Amino acid sequence: MNGLNPTGESGFFEIAGVGSAMQRLIAELYPICRSITGNGVRKTLEILRRSIPLEVHEVPSGTKVYDWIVPREWNIRDAYVKNTKGERVIDFKKSNLHVVGYSVPIRRRMGLQELREHLFSLPDHPDWIPYRTSYYKENWGFCLNHRQIEALENDEYEVCIDSSLTEGHLTYGEYLLPGKTADEILISCHICHPSLCNDNLSGISLALHLAMLIARLPVRRYAYRFLFIPGTIGSITWLARNEGQVGRIRHGLVVTCVGDGGRFTYKKSRRGNAEIDRTVQHVLKHSGHPYVVEDFFPYGYDERQYCSPGLDLPVGCLMRSPHGSFPEYHTSADDMEFVRPEHLEVSLHVYRQVIEVLEGNGVHHNLNPKCEPQLGRRGLYDAIGGDSNRKLNQMALLWVLNLSDGAHSLLEIGEVANLSFREIKHAADALTRSGLLLEHGAITAAFPDD
Amino acid sequence: MNGLNPTGESGFFEIAGVGSAMQRLIAELYPICRSITGNGVRKTLEILRRSIPLEVHEVPSGTKVYDWIVPREWNIRDAYVKNTKGERVIDFKKSNLHVVGYSVPIRRRMGLQELREHLFSLPDHPDWIPYRTSYYKENWGFCLNHRQIEALENDEYEVCIDSSLTEGHLTYGEYLLPGKTADEILISCHICHPSLCNDNLSGISLALHLAMLIARLPVRRYAYRFLFIPGTIGSITWLARNEGQVGRIRHGLVVTCVGDGGRFTYKKSRRGNAEIDRTVQHVLKHSGHPYVVEDFFPYGYDERQYCSPGLDLPVGCLMRSPHGSFPEYHTSADDMEFVRPEHLEVSLHVYRQVIEVLEGNGVHHNLNPKCEPQLGRRGLYDAIGGDSNRKLNQMALLWVLNLSDGAHSLLEIGEVANLSFREIKHAADALTRSGLLLEHGAITAAFPDD
Amino acid sequence: MNGLNPTGESGFFEIAGVGSAMQRLIAELYPICRSITGNGVRKTLEILRRSIPLEVHEVPSGTKVYDWIVPREWNIRDAYVKNTKGERVIDFKKSNLHVVGYSVPIRRRMGLQELREHLFSLPDHPDWIPYRTSYYKENWGFCLNHRQIEALENDEYEVCIDSSLTEGHLTYGEYLLPGKTADEILISCHICHPSLCNDNLSGISLALHLAMLIARLPVRRYAYRFLFIPGTIGSITWLARNEGQVGRIRHGLVVTCVGDGGRFTYKKSRRGNAEIDRTVQHVLKHSGHPYVVEDFFPYGYDERQYCSPGLDLPVGCLMRSPHGSFPEYHTSADDMEFVRPEHLEVSLHVYRQVIEVLEGNGVHHNLNPKCEPQLGRRGLYDAIGGDSNRKLNQMALLWVLNLSDGAHSLLEIGEVANLSFREIKHAADALTRSGLLLEHGAITAAFPDD
Repeated sequence: MNGLNPTGESGFFEIAGVGSAMQRLIAELYPICRSITGNGVRKTLEILRRSIPLEVHEVPSGTKVYDWIVPREWNIRDAYVKNTKGERVIDFKKSNLHVVGYSVPIRRRMGLQELREHLFSLPDHPDWIPYRTSYYKENWGFCLNHRQIEALENDEYEVCIDSSLTEGHLTYGEYLLPGKTADEILISCHICHPSLCNDNLSGISLALHLAMLIARLPVRRYAYRFLFIPGTIGSITWLARNEGQVGRIRHGLVVTCVGDGGRFTYKKSRRGNAEIDRTVQHVLKHSGHPYVVEDFFPYGYDERQYCSPGLDLPVGCLMRSPHGSFPEYHTSADDMEFVRPEHLEVSLHVYRQVIEVLEGNGVHHNLNPKCEPQLGRRGLYDAIGGDSNRKLNQMALLWVLNLSDGAHSLLEIGEVANLSFREIKHAADALTRSGLLLEHGAITAAFPDD
Repeated sequence: MNGLNPTGESGFFEIAGVGSAMQRLIAELYPICRSITGNGVRKTLEILRRSIPLEVHEVPSGTKVYDWIVPREWNIRDAYVKNTKGERVIDFKKSNLHVVGYSVPIRRRMGLQELREHLFSLPDHPDWIPYRTSYYKENWGFCLNHRQIEALENDEYEVCIDSSLTEGHLTYGEYLLPGKTADEILISCHICHPSLCNDNLSGISLALHLAMLIARLPVRRYAYRFLFIPGTIGSITWLARNEGQVGRIRHGLVVTCVGDGGRFTYKKSRRGNAEIDRTVQHVLKHSGHPYVVEDFFPYGYDERQYCSPGLDLPVGCLMRSPHGSFPEYHTSADDMEFVRPEHLEVSLHVYRQVIEVLEGNGVHHNLNPKCEPQLGRRGLYDAIGGDSNRKLNQMALLWVLNLSDGAHSLLEIGEVANLSFREIKHAADALTRSGLLLEHGAITAAFPDD
Repeated sequence: MNGLNPTGESGFFEIAGVGSAMQRLIAELYPICRSITGNGVRKTLEILRRSIPLEVHEVPSGTKVYDWIVPREWNIRDAYVKNTKGERVIDFKKSNLHVVGYSVPIRRRMGLQELREHLFSLPDHPDWIPYRTSYYKENWGFCLNHRQIEALENDEYEVCIDSSLTEGHLTYGEYLLPGKTADEILISCHICHPSLCNDNLSGISLALHLAMLIARLPVRRYAYRFLFIPGTIGSITWLARNEGQVGRIRHGLVVTCVGDGGRFTYKKSRRGNAEIDRTVQHVLKHSGHPYVVEDFFPYGYDERQYCSPGLDLPVGCLMRSPHGSFPEYHTSADDMEFVRPEHLEVSLHVYRQVIEVLEGNGVHHNLNPKCEPQLGRRGLYDAIGGDSNRKLNQMALLWVLNLSDGAHSLLEIGEVANLSFREIKHAADALTRSGLLLEHGAITAAFPDD
């Protein structure tokens, strides 16, 4: 993990590091046909279990979860449309995007006109296959690129979707890393999309690698809960089954779309000024990467559920290009070329820095609060002169002393001082070692290879 | 009232509608010589009583009203200045602006030099007659256009002002429309100016037509109090006589200068963030019309009195070109050409939309506050895809659900969501019909022709 | 003092006024070799005592003051470096900046190489001598201009610093002007720099002249405490000895760098929105002089100590070019040419206006709070028309009436009205004389020559 250089100096991201491993996992998961239920989800979780011992939960169809009901389980073995020559003009085996998710089984001959009502394409992107689903209304359909549709001749077609929609289970994975306190940090990603890389797989891969990294921390202030769940119905199911414990979630992030080359986008929690909101903004500001911050809105990923008014958890969504903002979104073009190891790696860095701030963001008391202490005799001050780097540290020392009145966290001090959390944290640690500062009930954690 | 299209689509304002009626009323009131007391006010109120059954109040001269005393009543029959040839070189019968308001009676011969000390004109606008008054200092004078002054020859003049300043009454009109609650909305306009159209008559005409419109509402959450009063002394008199009831005024607007073609100007109440302030700003923002918003300042119309520190009522002033900002202000050029039916009509629309928001601006509770409810099975969500208009409504639904936590009014939700009150209100109504939302103690009103 | 025209009209500052006296004092103090202790400080205070009866305090070396210990006293009689020809190539008698402050005594021969390790210059400003000290680490050294260093030949040098570092005292001056209340305004300046004019002497001169001015006030709402102290250790010493009384300090300013021609810089107190912060900003805004306002940061002058978290006094720093922002700072170029009488005089004006606002900034009650009072019958309102200057006053009257609800100070009213404190104060005085306004417990002071 020596490659994990959080300051993002140039020259770093050319090195093959964790980004390659993140991309390899995506490659392995890519062919699997996932949906909100079914064997694709089980297979995906099985692969993740090779790296982290996550617990797999099975919730029966028909279970009431708040206003919703866990749907029937959907599985699919094969699907195609054959012309009279017996050629598969649409073939599920070539791309699992070809079938509308949750399509009911069908095996019937029909003319082009009837078939057309069940075909979806993107005229503006004639080479891409769209991704469509119909979870809660029984239907069937095929998605294909627009050139394919235009090439379809007036023929009689054999239409086959060899799927099943039966009483079964909704499956999700959960991994809890205990901490010194019962307070939790939630990391949630969705696992319900078939062959889509940025939306879905990049989030899964980042969450897994972050979990592996955090598992190696010798001390954790917080417990960490990783959820690998189908979107919407998965978070609703988890929340309904764990309502009594959600109060432990002190900070949370929904991970998705973290493999493309776009600027970072942070969508704030509904609270808008939670510690997670300030932390992510601080990390992005000092990351050197371009980014935007958006206020919460009740659309998007599972933050919609975590931030519903009756729960109002401090959960934001940290991504790169947000849902719906890139043309490849929900099409076959969101593929292995669209996500890159170097982007995944930078995204993991940013997540890691967020964790570092949350773990280290204590409130301190200046033990010598009346006038400044004499830093010089403690070796914390230059005798004559001093270069500008040293001076910066000196300002960090003075800011920490001035604002450690029990009312400002280190992150808040950094924001006022316009210094990075790292600089402030180093100053606070030096002052603590000198006996000038006392942390207020915090247990510090350090990444082992720092 | 089908013409009252509140979205202001093009093509609408060419149609002769309520604007013509508003303009006709102005035309009828225009020749009357009004002042802060006297028969001009009585005649004006009599004309208004043909449309609404307003109550006329007579307050005797000498009555103490707070720090003020109701002045003597002023009436005028004729006034002129004749030259030695017997020609009326200034003639009150041609324009009631020619006489300084509250001029004491005079009948005397004098030379040009003495006369000149009592003549007022506007050298920068040599064709316009200025409007002047001297309510609280006994004086007399004539106003005329500057060319007239320059044409006056060195002659002996017969000066006559056939006025009377005697113990009498201050007259004002009041119209109360009851509502489901005792809470009131105040609409106040001044009726003390002679032949001035935008300043004075446009406000009177708008208030009257708004009253007629509101009278037709089958249900009113609020009671509506319309005041037709002389400026300053009138509002002071009304407040002094009704101090015990002013606590009922929940929202209020002073109406004036609503017939010109300038952009809208909203001057906030002294409170600055009252519901009326947020409502008017919201309506103007979504109206498509240009507008400016000004903070309260202690000058202008009767909002000065309503917003004095000991009363501090939530009363703003919604006008187009504000007092003193247009050269025609307080001159003979503020005439029947300066106000236009189409401008009056747009102004009435905006007022009406303000009323709609105030009537409908409830606070709701999401009855399913933990996670989102399943909109699809209630027919509130598209199954596959959806056009952008539908999507907008969907966002309104999601915003209303997310922020209906008992702490946000619909107006506030609209402001956060950047959606119009109408869109939010429609979504709230749909959710209420679906049993997902419950209004918190509000009684809704609907305009009958919506 | 008739020359003290606070509105800063042109033509004024050409007149030799208080600025000349301020500059003369600087000239007299300039040659004295001051440090944080020693006879230079005593001599300086002695000169100040010719104008104001300040009390001189002597605190013994070794006294514990919070985290610090009062250092040994440093005095110096002579210092030089002689070449083998017996010429003084560096001579303390020519400039007291030549010796590093607190240099320990030395009398030794050495070669150029060894000497060089103790020489300091400014290569970027080869004609200027830098100012250096080593208070808390025993050391010695010489400062000289870079050309001098380069001209030094490879010779054997006689190095002599005839200084003493012995148990003695830290000396500071204090001057208290009593007021009607025990509440205090603190004016603090540092007196520890040798021949430096803007940094050090300009502040001393301004504080002295401000003290003389305030001493002449017939009535003072506040008591005034002037401190003439060595930087850092002096304020720490004063605070440690007077901790029980610091709660009386309601407002304070650190005075320094007020003689150069730069724009004004106000560095806010740690509180950020204290009355002193709002007052200085108001005065600067209406002064017509360019200025900047900075948030507090824990570096700079003695505001660092006053604003330490355990004290958090409302003390800002009002200067012109701030510490470190001008190249002459801490060099021989901060000399008698760098500070100018006209700049000192403008700075004194600004300080004086700050005092005027603090003294006059009462909270009032409108005794006629319901509707406006009738200003006309009290001679406070124009009968017909009125020029724009009168109108401005009228707005001030209306603003004072509208906001004198017991919750707004005159300064706050001025800020809302965007009128100067003077205009607001004049209006408040006129209304008070008319019996319409009552001040809430304030004792007003007036400068005698206003």
